[in-house]
Amino acid sequence: MPSDLERAMEMLVTVFYRYSKKTGNSNTLSRSEFKQLMETELSTFLKAQRDPNVVDRIRNDLDANGDGELNFEEFVSLVVGLSVACEQIYQLHEKQEQCRNRYCGPSKH
Amino acid sequence: MPSDLERAMEMLVTVFYRYSKKTGNSNTLSRSEFKQLMETELSTFLKAQRDPNVVDRIRNDLDANGDGELNFEEFVSLVVGLSVACEQIYQLHEKQEQCRNRYCGPSKH
Repeated sequence: MPSDLERAMEMLVTVFYRYSKKTGNSNTLSRSEFKQLMETELSTFLKAQRDPNVVDRIRNDLDANGDGELNFEEFVSLVVGLSVACEQIYQLHEKQEQCRNRYCGPSKH
Repeated sequence: MPSDLERAMEMLVTVFYRYSKKTGNSNTLSRSEFKQLMETELSTFLKAQRDPNVVDRIRNDLDANGDGELNFEEFVSLVVGLSVACEQIYQLHEKQEQCRNRYCGPSKH
């Protein structure tokens, strides 16, 4: 049975290919495939963005080799950036919780 | 309900903290915490390695700031490296499958 970390890594590959196989080169995400991935997999993140061109902006930032398509390595950069941001929020939340417990007693939830 | 990609990213944070919280600084992996993580989460990968010091070698490679501990960002580099390797194996497997189908007909599995 795979470990949690193995399942997470497998999930990254599965999600990438779920969209990259739709049209054209099956090993890369076209502009529209990336848009679909973002709208389906990261809808909460997108709703929090004010820039209406955020998907295109992110896509251009990720396209390191500038070929107009995103390969898995380029896609993973997005996952890294978002995971690190999530982890920083988690750290902040933990600190706030410790602070609250110290000064106001443990929270009830 | 979180998407598959959101669950994968959440899993990366969860796995990291499952080990980093064991002793000392709860936001970083000590040498022994990283060893436990590797032996539990990546046991299949470790079994395929010939170098008996592979865990220490990987740890030293990941410790970008050289402080002897691994923070989440440094840990994620490992996940990226392994995910990209997995994806390349997946691509190779897909090519072999296409080749087999072309010359020998579709496989039965």
